[in-house]
This record gives sequence, C-alpha cells and structure tokens, in this order.
Amino acid sequence: MTNEIAIRKDRLWDSIQTLGRIGETDDGAMMRVTGSDADRRARDRVVEWFRAADMDVAVDPVGNVVARRAGRVDAPPVVTGSHIDTVPAGGKFDGTVGVLGPLEIVRAWNAAGLETDRPIHVVVFTEEEGTRFGTGLLGSLVATGRLRTDDALALEDEDGVTLAETLREMGYDGRADLGLSDAAAFIEMHVEQGPVLDRSDTAVGVVETVAGITHHRVTFEGEADHAGNTPMEMRRDAYAGAAEFTLELERTARRHAETSNTVGTVGKSTVAPNGTNVIPGRVDLGVDIRDTDGEHLRDAVSSAKDRAREIASRRELDCRWRSLLDVSPTAMSPEIIRRLIGAVRDSGYDYRRMLSGAGHDAMNVAAVAPTGLLFVPSRDGVSHSPAEYTSPEDLYAGTRVLEAALRDLATSE
Amino acid sequence: MTNEIAIRKDRLWDSIQTLGRIGETDDGAMMRVTGSDADRRARDRVVEWFRAADMDVAVDPVGNVVARRAGRVDAPPVVTGSHIDTVPAGGKFDGTVGVLGPLEIVRAWNAAGLETDRPIHVVVFTEEEGTRFGTGLLGSLVATGRLRTDDALALEDEDGVTLAETLREMGYDGRADLGLSDAAAFIEMHVEQGPVLDRSDTAVGVVETVAGITHHRVTFEGEADHAGNTPMEMRRDAYAGAAEFTLELERTARRHAETSNTVGTVGKSTVAPNGTNVIPGRVDLGVDIRDTDGEHLRDAVSSAKDRAREIASRRELDCRWRSLLDVSPTAMSPEIIRRLIGAVRDSGYDYRRMLSGAGHDAMNVAAVAPTGLLFVPSRDGVSHSPAEYTSPEDLYAGTRVLEAALRDLATSE
Repeated sequence: MTNEIAIRKDRLWDSIQTLGRIGETDDGAMMRVTGSDADRRARDRVVEWFRAADMDVAVDPVGNVVARRAGRVDAPPVVTGSHIDTVPAGGKFDGTVGVLGPLEIVRAWNAAGLETDRPIHVVVFTEEEGTRFGTGLLGSLVATGRLRTDDALALEDEDGVTLAETLREMGYDGRADLGLSDAAAFIEMHVEQGPVLDRSDTAVGVVETVAGITHHRVTFEGEADHAGNTPMEMRRDAYAGAAEFTLELERTARRHAETSNTVGTVGKSTVAPNGTNVIPGRVDLGVDIRDTDGEHLRDAVSSAKDRAREIASRRELDCRWRSLLDVSPTAMSPEIIRRLIGAVRDSGYDYRRMLSGAGHDAMNVAAVAPTGLLFVPSRDGVSHSPAEYTSPEDLYAGTRVLEAALRDLATSE
Repeated sequence: MTNEIAIRKDRLWDSIQTLGRIGETDDGAMMRVTGSDADRRARDRVVEWFRAADMDVAVDPVGNVVARRAGRVDAPPVVTGSHIDTVPAGGKFDGTVGVLGPLEIVRAWNAAGLETDRPIHVVVFTEEEGTRFGTGLLGSLVATGRLRTDDALALEDEDGVTLAETLREMGYDGRADLGLSDAAAFIEMHVEQGPVLDRSDTAVGVVETVAGITHHRVTFEGEADHAGNTPMEMRRDAYAGAAEFTLELERTARRHAETSNTVGTVGKSTVAPNGTNVIPGRVDLGVDIRDTDGEHLRDAVSSAKDRAREIASRRELDCRWRSLLDVSPTAMSPEIIRRLIGAVRDSGYDYRRMLSGAGHDAMNVAAVAPTGLLFVPSRDGVSHSPAEYTSPEDLYAGTRVLEAALRDLATSE
C-alpha cells in the first residue's frame, strides 16, 4: 500500500541551505575543501540525515560515503550521488544537489511507504574538485578502478599531508566497497555550470556526452626590448604572437562549432617581464580545448597547434606546446538517457538533450555501469562562485525527474 | 700652446669598468639605486676623479653634482652630463657613458694643455631612473624648474624615507645652483637602448627629437564563465577582446609608422581569474604609445581608443581607458644638431639622424637651453639588463665626437 510520493520543495531547499551554512564565509562563499573541518562537519551532517532516513551508511578506503536503502529483491542496486566538497570560494549547489536531491527522494519514499524492487544507493564522492590533492574526480577514479587506492592515499597536499592522514583524522577511512561495477544503473544530478538551460528557460538537461578535455601550456618566446626605442619592424613581441594565437583559437573553435561543439579558451596568461614600457619577451598561455567528438577534438587541437607554429615562425618567435591533460569524451548510456527522457515526460517538464563541457564523477562511473547525467539550471551559467544559484523550483523539478527515473530503474522486470 | 688632443680609449674603458664594480652583484648586474651605499660610493669616486682633473665640484639641493672647468673668458658655460644611478639589475653603460666620456675629455684637454674660451660643466643628475622615489628624470626636472625643490625633497620611497633624508645621510645635500638656463649649450651622450645603430653598424646617432610618451591602462571586462560549459557564441571573453585590441594597436602603429615613427606596445597584461579552465572575466593592459610628432601621437592614441571601444562594443565587453602619462615630444636644438653633425664629420665617423623613443634628462634641459642628444650603440639594443654593452671602440668614437662638439661650442665667436 503506497501513498502519493511527494517531493517537498521546502524540505529540499532547507537541506541545501543547512548544508550551505557549513563552511560558509562571511561573504556567502563556500570553503569546504576536502579534509577541512567544514568538510568533516558536512559529512557528519549528511551521514546523520541518511541514517535518520533509515539508510545504512558505509565508508570506503578513500572516504567515499555510500548510504544504502534495501530493495524488495536481492538484485544489483540503482546508484545515484555526487559530491559535497567545494572549490575555495565556491557555491552551495555544485555537487550538493546530487546528494541532497536523492536524500529528499528517500525521505519522500519513506513518507509514502514506497519500497523499490532493487536497492537504492546514494554515493558521496571524495575530492571531486581536486582542490586539495590536485586530482579531480578522485573518489570516483578509485571507486571505478581507474586509480589505485594506495596511489590515491599517498597523494599529498601543498603541506605534504597525505590523503590517508587526512581521512584518518576526519574518521572517514573506511573499508567498504562501493561495488559500482555491480550497479544496475548510475545517475548523477548536477548543476549545469553553463548558461544553456537558464537562457533557454528549460527545466532539465539530459546529457548525451561528457566532452573530452585537453589542457595545454603554450609558450611564445621573443625578445624583451625597450618599448620606446625598438621600431615596430624590429620587434619580436611575444604578446602580439600570443594575441594572434588567441584569436585563431577562437576562430578555429567557432568554425568547428558549426559541425561539432568544440570550445577553445585561453584562460590563463602570464607575461614577462610585464612592464608597460617593455616589449613582452615571453608569454605562457593556459589553453583549454574540448569537444564531445574525439576526432573533432584531435582535429581542433592539431589545427590550433599548427596555427601557433605558423604564427611563431612568421613573427620569429619560439613556440613550445606542452599537453598537460587529455581526457577522452564519454558517452552516457542510451538506455539511461531513454529512461531519463521518459521520466521527464511523466513529470510534465521540458528538457533538452545536451552535452557536458565539464567533467563529472559520472564520467568515471560510465566505464563500469550504465550511466546517466541530469542537469538542472545554473542562473546566468555561473558556478564555482558565491553567486552560483539554482532556484527552489528548478531543484524541485530536477529532483522529481530524478525520482521518477530512479523508481523506474529500481523496478525489476 | 696646445698639443694634440688624445682621447684614450683604454683609460675611458677603465673608468667605466671601475665605476661598474661599485654596486655590481655576483652575476654582473648593477644595483645602484639612488641613496644606496653603492650610489654614495660611486658619487664619491666620480667627484674624486673630477677633482683630480682640476675641476671644481658643487652639489645642488637635490643632489645633482656639477664639476666645473673654467674658461678663458667669463661667458655662459657649455654643459654636458647624464646620470650614474641604475635600475635594479641594470647595466654598466646607461647614464655612465655621459658622465665618464666628459671626464675623459677633460683629462685629454688637461694633458694637451687645452683651454676653452667658455667654461665647461659636467653634470651628474640625481634619480634619473626614478627607481626609488617614483619620478624619473628627477634631478633635471628640479634643475630646470619643472619640479619644485621642496616637492622633490618631500618625495618618499616605499619605506617612507624622503629624498631629503636620503641626500642628507649620503652627504649630497648641497646649495649650489646648476644655472642650466644660463648655459650656452647642453649635450648629453647616452647609449641608444635600441637596436638601430647596432643593426645598421653606425658609429653614432644624432637625435633630432625625443618622442612623446603616453601610458594608458586599458581594462576589458566581460564575464568569467566555465570554459567547458559555455558555448562559443554565449561568451563575453575579456582576453579575446584584449587580444584583438593588441593586434589592432600593432596595426595602427605600423600604419602610422609609414609616415611617422609611432610605436605602440602592450607591455603589461593582468588576467582575472587566470585559470586555464575559466573564460577570462577581466583583463588590464598596460599600453605605451609614442611618437616624435605631437599630432601623430594624438591621432594614434585616439585611433587606438576608438578601436578599443569598437571591439568592446561588438564583443559586449565593458572598456575603460585611463591615461596615466602624457609627455609631449621634445625637439633638440637645430643649431646643436648642426654642430654635432659637423663634429661627426671632423672625426671621420658615420652617423644617422634619429629619434629617441626613451626619455632623457636632455628633454628637460631642452626647455631652458639649446640642447643636443648623442647616441652610441647598444649591442642588440639591450638595456636595463646586465647584458647591456657598448664596445670600447664605440665609446671611443662617441667620446671623440662629443669632444669635438664641446670644443667647438666652447669657442666664443
């Protein structure tokens, strides 16, 4: 006998706000770096909530937390989850909504007396942001066998403190096995961190592919000369070369974007000597190129590299190109996408199929289990900032869709 | 009865090298900032040399030193000189050659028993580099009445120490009046600090005009968004805007340079937030635009400003343009130029008429007396660096030309 399932918008919002006060600075920014006192208190709070919702909580060796709700039958579980660590001066929604949305769903199911066939697990991954130990998506890398537990535990922060020591001190060094490769399905709900849903006024996004991500350090080296005494035609201006490359990268990405969804960004730039009256002798650029199609991504990178070389040679500059990160695109499971879209329709919301330009734990889980990624809107596309915001209505919509999808997947056929 | 005047290349080189050991760091860089112990010892050394050459030495209230050699008649003096302070990690030639070249000339005249009609004064200006008290050309600004003595003496360094205290402690707080406005002529010999003479293998440069100098802080402000999740067409990328402006400034300067000698440089660039995976939200540029023609300079600045506004508006960026420095071009005296060219021809060297893109004390003196500026080559155009170098041969050539010009000017007609 099951009553109507009622996701409570106010209770969900309260949970988000309550967790958002743990590690909040005076100006409303979140400082909840892995292993900080705020991280420990936030973990304790979430664990307490899960237990109060009659879930069984366990911790694995890298501090990933799993809360389990039994099913009617002994079958592979349906798993959901995300993370609660933040970047320094981050926001209250990134990660959190994918942990507290599921908490609200379990609370609603408990209130309605709903039992699912399959067990439901909610996972809280450690160090998703990579802020303290330098490796993003850390918890899911280990939980999916992509990074060895010992190697992860040996990672050190800037002060030489290891992850192992950090977890021990927090009391989050457990022995559980998340068993993600046994999962029937995994769905992560996350804020979009981009402007597409907000600008198109769409309730949710069903992600088809997480873009491949490449990072490069591109250095242009010329000659630092006197800005007054060096005629224009005698210059080897590293900044002018870097500027030309920046516009070429923008052009390349825009051209590719007509047929694919390439984005190319020069996000970082360091100039030497960096004096108004000195022609720059050297510029280091931090370059980010992404695409959901692996071949397009390789083409875009290779085309950008050619342009950098051509610009450098024409301007008599030296150019060095070092690739620092190269993550392949990850497709989400067509079956989970189908179920998510079904759940959106049942809930009466609108949606769009979209890509994720950012990496998420779901990328790693996709290698071991059928995986989906559900986006809720980010106001103005802002994230990693105290200005990050998703409205109570949008959180309610996303959680209702997630609830329908989990319930559907948890029904064994 | 006068013997042949023999400028001694080895003695001049020895003086340069001896002074170059005062304030020299282990890696050969010069650290002779105003009021440092090295500055005091260098001043003492130069004063001793001038006195040993039978010159009368006096100091003015801002520490400018003047060494006077009497003439046969009571007439306005012919003045020469430069500075001996350095930028941090500077070289051994910038400034120094315009003080020790004249010292060598006086020594040669003494050895030859030459008496000039007019008195000859050699001036050593205080704080030309502006490194410690923030105002370049400080000594000549005061000596030509462009900056009040009291205002100069009240200037403070980063630790709040005033110029007055600094000079008192060094023992270089005098009461002399340099009397530059009474000078019959002023000539400064200086290293070019640019590549023109070195690359064209020319012995000396006769400067016709010191370029006007303008500095601007140009800020582009857009929106810092996620590099992965923000499609190309939704971006307001401040760095792409700054890059486009940088290339436009280069184009504007090159176009103007066909008819004038405009140079335009983006020397400084600060990006926020400056992360590889974040679209830059704000870029501050330090922009330097110079020209020897005041009208061309105004045109170039106004054209650059228009382009910045146009780029910002097209890219939906905000643009702020603040002008921080605006020094008008300064023409050297046609009469002194004529005399310098005559002296070059008499000495058998080649020369070129040229401009100075850098500011020099001669700019200030030009407002009160007929003034000339003579350049000797800088190897590879390098200055403000331990790699700064002018060969003994080039120093000899420049000093011979200066000697001939001073002797000519010191002959009363």
